Amino acid sequence: MSSTIVRPSVNALAAPLVEALVADAARLRLAVRAAPGEARLIDAGAAVPGSIEAGRRIAEICLGGLGTVTLAPAGPVAAWPFTVTVHTADPVLACLGSQYAGWSLADEEGKSGFFALGSGPGRAAAAAEPLFEELHYRDGAARIVLVLESGSPPPPSVIAEVARAAGLAPGDVTFVYAPTQSLAGATQVVARVLEVALHKAHAIGFDLGAIVDGIGAAPLSPPHPDFIQAMGRTNDAIIYGGRVQLFVEADDGEARALAQALPSATSRDHGAPFAEIFARFNGDFYAIDKHLFSPAEVVVTSLRTGTSHRGGRLVPELVERSFA
Amino acid sequence: MSSTIVRPSVNALAAPLVEALVADAARLRLAVRAAPGEARLIDAGAAVPGSIEAGRRIAEICLGGLGTVTLAPAGPVAAWPFTVTVHTADPVLACLGSQYAGWSLADEEGKSGFFALGSGPGRAAAAAEPLFEELHYRDGAARIVLVLESGSPPPPSVIAEVARAAGLAPGDVTFVYAPTQSLAGATQVVARVLEVALHKAHAIGFDLGAIVDGIGAAPLSPPHPDFIQAMGRTNDAIIYGGRVQLFVEADDGEARALAQALPSATSRDHGAPFAEIFARFNGDFYAIDKHLFSPAEVVVTSLRTGTSHRGGRLVPELVERSFA
Amino acid sequence: MSSTIVRPSVNALAAPLVEALVADAARLRLAVRAAPGEARLIDAGAAVPGSIEAGRRIAEICLGGLGTVTLAPAGPVAAWPFTVTVHTADPVLACLGSQYAGWSLADEEGKSGFFALGSGPGRAAAAAEPLFEELHYRDGAARIVLVLESGSPPPPSVIAEVARAAGLAPGDVTFVYAPTQSLAGATQVVARVLEVALHKAHAIGFDLGAIVDGIGAAPLSPPHPDFIQAMGRTNDAIIYGGRVQLFVEADDGEARALAQALPSATSRDHGAPFAEIFARFNGDFYAIDKHLFSPAEVVVTSLRTGTSHRGGRLVPELVERSFA
Repeated sequence: MSSTIVRPSVNALAAPLVEALVADAARLRLAVRAAPGEARLIDAGAAVPGSIEAGRRIAEICLGGLGTVTLAPAGPVAAWPFTVTVHTADPVLACLGSQYAGWSLADEEGKSGFFALGSGPGRAAAAAEPLFEELHYRDGAARIVLVLESGSPPPPSVIAEVARAAGLAPGDVTFVYAPTQSLAGATQVVARVLEVALHKAHAIGFDLGAIVDGIGAAPLSPPHPDFIQAMGRTNDAIIYGGRVQLFVEADDGEARALAQALPSATSRDHGAPFAEIFARFNGDFYAIDKHLFSPAEVVVTSLRTGTSHRGGRLVPELVERSFA
Repeated sequence: MSSTIVRPSVNALAAPLVEALVADAARLRLAVRAAPGEARLIDAGAAVPGSIEAGRRIAEICLGGLGTVTLAPAGPVAAWPFTVTVHTADPVLACLGSQYAGWSLADEEGKSGFFALGSGPGRAAAAAEPLFEELHYRDGAARIVLVLESGSPPPPSVIAEVARAAGLAPGDVTFVYAPTQSLAGATQVVARVLEVALHKAHAIGFDLGAIVDGIGAAPLSPPHPDFIQAMGRTNDAIIYGGRVQLFVEADDGEARALAQALPSATSRDHGAPFAEIFARFNGDFYAIDKHLFSPAEVVVTSLRTGTSHRGGRLVPELVERSFA
Repeated sequence: MSSTIVRPSVNALAAPLVEALVADAARLRLAVRAAPGEARLIDAGAAVPGSIEAGRRIAEICLGGLGTVTLAPAGPVAAWPFTVTVHTADPVLACLGSQYAGWSLADEEGKSGFFALGSGPGRAAAAAEPLFEELHYRDGAARIVLVLESGSPPPPSVIAEVARAAGLAPGDVTFVYAPTQSLAGATQVVARVLEVALHKAHAIGFDLGAIVDGIGAAPLSPPHPDFIQAMGRTNDAIIYGGRVQLFVEADDGEARALAQALPSATSRDHGAPFAEIFARFNGDFYAIDKHLFSPAEVVVTSLRTGTSHRGGRLVPELVERSFA
């Protein structure tokens, strides 16, 4: 059915949100650096304080204008009631085609040692990842935005690489960057609660075309000045405090299998705050079971049968241990 | 007091929301059919997937631009935390003058067998129902929108009837249609949690002029491909999981009587999922006690005395049985 | 860091919200009185019903366009689930520089006996309070808005005083007024849950420059026709039902001390509904311990260490006794 529907441009949809971020820089405590012909750089938490609201808006930019991110005063973890909710009418394009932090960007020419994962609409313009072939999507927007989970701005070589990959000039590219340790960084990562479900669904071979709608929520994690602890908290918000509901055009067998395979509890590494797991593997991120990166609790509703299948469970005590 | 205040045009207030729905059709996975001189038809869940977000927006259109509909990550039913909230500063006009599905539209000339209940601002332009005499309201907008809970577009005879009743040409009318079985259909029906309270208040003879403000919430029901089950779930979301607070310019006796009469528990048919009740009456909708159609829990606050009166109670286990 | 960031104009940011309030006056059931050269007067609950939504919007105006106020269907007090949430990326400027009701306005020339506390952006244009010297902030906007918790419009002498203090003509000033007893009045006062935390932090000598971000929530209190009871309920919503999280650039000692000193439970008068306390002091507002005016539960997160410090506790049974 959906093949007859024109796919929107995630960069075009995000563009007004980016311009609003720039216009509101003072009230969101961001810094914008822009010069003719050069990439525009928005610091949302490196040399400036930034804010939770900036993170909320960056999350909506990451979703390519296809989703809504809100803050609510109640959620499943009693001691941490403020909750980030995300919902989108197009989870595959919004989360995998745009929000997923799938583009590794390293300063290979320079000596800065810069490395960051790029997320957001700009990925779909470059389509440098094999995932985009599967999504049958490439965004030909004339201006793009890329979000970097980073404590420093991208060096010239990375800016050039991004522009080149998208077939654009550096002046057509906006970068938004904030470290995981910042308010905006923490907020926009917790808003990935739905995206990690989509990513795991893809990783375990579920047909992406069958995912029709999605909604997710996770507690807002408090920032931590140490990168490992900060990353641990944002992960724990999702792994032990995150809930997702997916609506799929699939039969009960497929929906039940997805609900059983999706939650973080299926991972051999489930059961401790992420920073502790990370230390256990001596800081080798890639040694950690990648199936851990998914929401605690999942409901998969089959639109074919109307039956909802459940998997996983919240572990509020591990959220509390992580955030304390 | 309110007699000195000019009444807004529900169609004029809804118009920008309708145009936004059309502009965002691709991202909400809707289909729009428009030709000069003909009615504009927006499919939100019949031949296209549609979305929860489309349903949320259709609900705000149904409220004639007079209300806000949001999705929250927490509510009274633990297993179904995602909750639809609706609030409006003008519950009588928003819910009864616009949102209520009170206009029976049948293809009496053609042979399509088409039948649907019309809801939303277009009703107030036609004012075909006796209710509008009581409301002392008729909307003379030049362009109108009508929402149909239907799996197929309105046939020419119904389009002509609607245009004629409003004194307009077909090209001035927009129809939004989605079946109850769809994501958008389920969402926009659950968003009637406040409207059913207003409708029952009217049915039991409470003075509508005394209702000043209102807010309601109910769990988002999962769609079901079978119409009876789908309708059952949206009803159960409200009947067993819905909460409403009304603010009334009335004394304690009147407010208490309203709080006691309003909840679904006052109905002789309360106590089982709606689809089971429907089967018990052999599918005769009109044999079901109409007092069942109201929220589970009601708070009525008297603005004259400041006292809040309560009636009914949530029955989460029946919501869970219905949604399972 | 923040010293390099340009401070926004709270009146300029609030201006589009004020114009939207005027444009939507009919649907929010407000009355607007405007004549060339005279102050514009928006009645949001004195001679008109007003609405909760009007109160929500007035709260965002009070925050100088720097914050978001939303209504959620769930919160910590089971019997009163509808909850007001407020968050802002600039709590000091939004809450103290704008929202705080710090400007005493009395009709000293006339005989009306008019007295009201002025809140909102207009305060920052007059900067009549010593607080503004500490904030190093004065807003030079050409048009301003002031919010009055009052059941009657400001008399000519008060209008003239406000205009004079801001160096403007009366025609450049908009007043929004609503009594505490009204729906809008109650809503906008409950939305001060974060502001009272900021005010107490200032009163106990915490460095305001260290407060980076904040979020708060409190149950929506039902209006009461008696001023003392109405004021009592809005206070109790915050004092016994309010939760706040502050993010501070401070070490653990300072953050812990703030978390311990901030909650209402530190007050000698904590433990009874506010109206009872008020009666106990024979209606002498200034005899009540001012440390009572703060949220029930506080989390202070140190951005330097990542540790969150807690103080206070919710007392839902006192909220229920107050609202009943």
